[in-house]
Amino acid sequence: MRIHDLPTPCAVMDLDVVERNAEAMAAKADALGVRLRPHVKTHKIPHVARLQTPGPFKGITVSTLAEAHHFAKHGFTDITWALPLPPSRLAEAAELAERIDLGVLVDTPATAARLVEARRPMRVWLKIDCGYHRAGVDPTDPASMDLLRTLMEADHLDVRGVLTHAGHSYGCKDDPEGLLAIARQERDAVVDFAARADHAGLGFRHVSVGSTPTCSVIDDLTGVTEIRPGNYVFFDLHQLGLGVCAVEDIALSVVASVIGQHMGRMVLDCGALALSKDPGHGEGYGRVFDLDGEELPIALHGLSQEHGLAKGYVPGLEKVRVLPNHSCLVAALHPVIYGVRGDEVVGQWAPVRGW
Amino acid sequence: MRIHDLPTPCAVMDLDVVERNAEAMAAKADALGVRLRPHVKTHKIPHVARLQTPGPFKGITVSTLAEAHHFAKHGFTDITWALPLPPSRLAEAAELAERIDLGVLVDTPATAARLVEARRPMRVWLKIDCGYHRAGVDPTDPASMDLLRTLMEADHLDVRGVLTHAGHSYGCKDDPEGLLAIARQERDAVVDFAARADHAGLGFRHVSVGSTPTCSVIDDLTGVTEIRPGNYVFFDLHQLGLGVCAVEDIALSVVASVIGQHMGRMVLDCGALALSKDPGHGEGYGRVFDLDGEELPIALHGLSQEHGLAKGYVPGLEKVRVLPNHSCLVAALHPVIYGVRGDEVVGQWAPVRGW
Repeated sequence: MRIHDLPTPCAVMDLDVVERNAEAMAAKADALGVRLRPHVKTHKIPHVARLQTPGPFKGITVSTLAEAHHFAKHGFTDITWALPLPPSRLAEAAELAERIDLGVLVDTPATAARLVEARRPMRVWLKIDCGYHRAGVDPTDPASMDLLRTLMEADHLDVRGVLTHAGHSYGCKDDPEGLLAIARQERDAVVDFAARADHAGLGFRHVSVGSTPTCSVIDDLTGVTEIRPGNYVFFDLHQLGLGVCAVEDIALSVVASVIGQHMGRMVLDCGALALSKDPGHGEGYGRVFDLDGEELPIALHGLSQEHGLAKGYVPGLEKVRVLPNHSCLVAALHPVIYGVRGDEVVGQWAPVRGW
Repeated sequence: MRIHDLPTPCAVMDLDVVERNAEAMAAKADALGVRLRPHVKTHKIPHVARLQTPGPFKGITVSTLAEAHHFAKHGFTDITWALPLPPSRLAEAAELAERIDLGVLVDTPATAARLVEARRPMRVWLKIDCGYHRAGVDPTDPASMDLLRTLMEADHLDVRGVLTHAGHSYGCKDDPEGLLAIARQERDAVVDFAARADHAGLGFRHVSVGSTPTCSVIDDLTGVTEIRPGNYVFFDLHQLGLGVCAVEDIALSVVASVIGQHMGRMVLDCGALALSKDPGHGEGYGRVFDLDGEELPIALHGLSQEHGLAKGYVPGLEKVRVLPNHSCLVAALHPVIYGVRGDEVVGQWAPVRGW
């Protein structure tokens, strides 16, 4: 089967590019002397995670407990659930932790207290805020060291280390210096905290950082032991705008049909449920190519549920391939991702969904 | 089971409100003398569609062929696929049309030519643009009448009528007069075209309009035979901003856990995959209530894949219920929608997904 034969809309991943991206990040981790624990939320497919973990270390990062269960079922036994643990899911996580090495994130005294009280054996990571201000404790706040101490004093908890994520790196459009500064800030926040913890007699083994933008630009990770990028395996237009990939590194796209051309406007059968409403850098909802790889003068400026609204006119155009703003959200929307090599469809995989 | 016991994040629909919304629109259709062919893309669940079609007419509208197949399997035999027919899906649609009354949309000479050539029996609707400028032919263009003639002259095609959708009604925030004007424009565009077609000897039976905002405000549908609103069964914050529902009419919400409170900011476990990135009217990603129905002083200003980022501080808060910007996209993201009455969970249903 060829790409042209696929029912539209559908998501396709170019496996040659996936493999190249996976190898490049694995090589970078080796060069930097850290292990790679890829975040699999980008694709939610064990087959892809296997391509990302070619060495002896098979650890992965997940965003949902549903992913943790699914990947555990498919042979992954060292999994970090990189979301602050929802207390209501503690029992379920503890149960899974009896079967595999499941690490959970803690960043509040309230959740730490729940874990201590529950007396269920569990691996834990202290999540640190390195400037993103989403989740994580302030590493300069003495209370953060107290929180670490609380966790370490609980015999049933195995504190793996500290972990952070510089999500604010996604704001560095056309700003390589700003991006590099954030990558260093991400590293320094956890390395400094680890040094102080060590000094306070609260030593631990792992120091984990990671986002695709920061891992792509950082050149020195002294003091860090693992990285957790995820998006790099697919990349997307957001990453392109950050300067950390080229167009030809983008492995995920959506194949769509032209279902109408009217006086300079065009309608595609890929809407918000095929592309997500992620605005990316605010430059439309995707770049449009023909199936031979030629970029088309079509501006995909709007999405409703199943319609993609474009400006442009290309006589006779039947199908297009759209590079998305945010590949993680796109992959999660599709029941199936088709794997292609060149023009040929070589397989299909279903991302796990839900929570 | 109670709402508080549900795993988070999850989507819940209040069945009392669903039934009330369904009855109100059915009553409105009766009062206006039109049949109601609800758009089921809002929920993609046959059980909900049954609540929307209490009378003898059981016609529905769908947005994907996957919905058409699923609802056909669950007993719906009169279905309009309200997306301009993608030529590559013609054979599949024709096959389904052998088993049920499937209507497809045509709005280009190219697609009409394909349907004529294919010689497969099919119900067709001519889609008219009433000012939204997404899909549809210009009703004032003589070529549109020619297109209708082409369809009517093909013996194997059963032209049901003309159809339009005033999607531009969604832009009428705090503008009831503008919204009413669009509702009348939607009606007049198809009624006028139908009169001219009749005059030209191209009479047909049905004149179909519909969007939840326009169907909510229109008070005279003379010349129209059916309406196709969909969102009204759930409503959402977007509709609230248009003034066509009250907060207590919003039937769909997302239950989430508080997974972190840090110095005036709060993290919820509902991100872009639980709420969609639909920006609504640009006032954040949802309104946040406690599980007793009290609105909370929490501004949900950001979403990443699985994190909801909020400003606010409510000591001891564990779970919340978020009213979404766009209920259609939210329902489609969830593997399951829980049905509740008051605080009690009375069932669960899976929306069909894919295309």
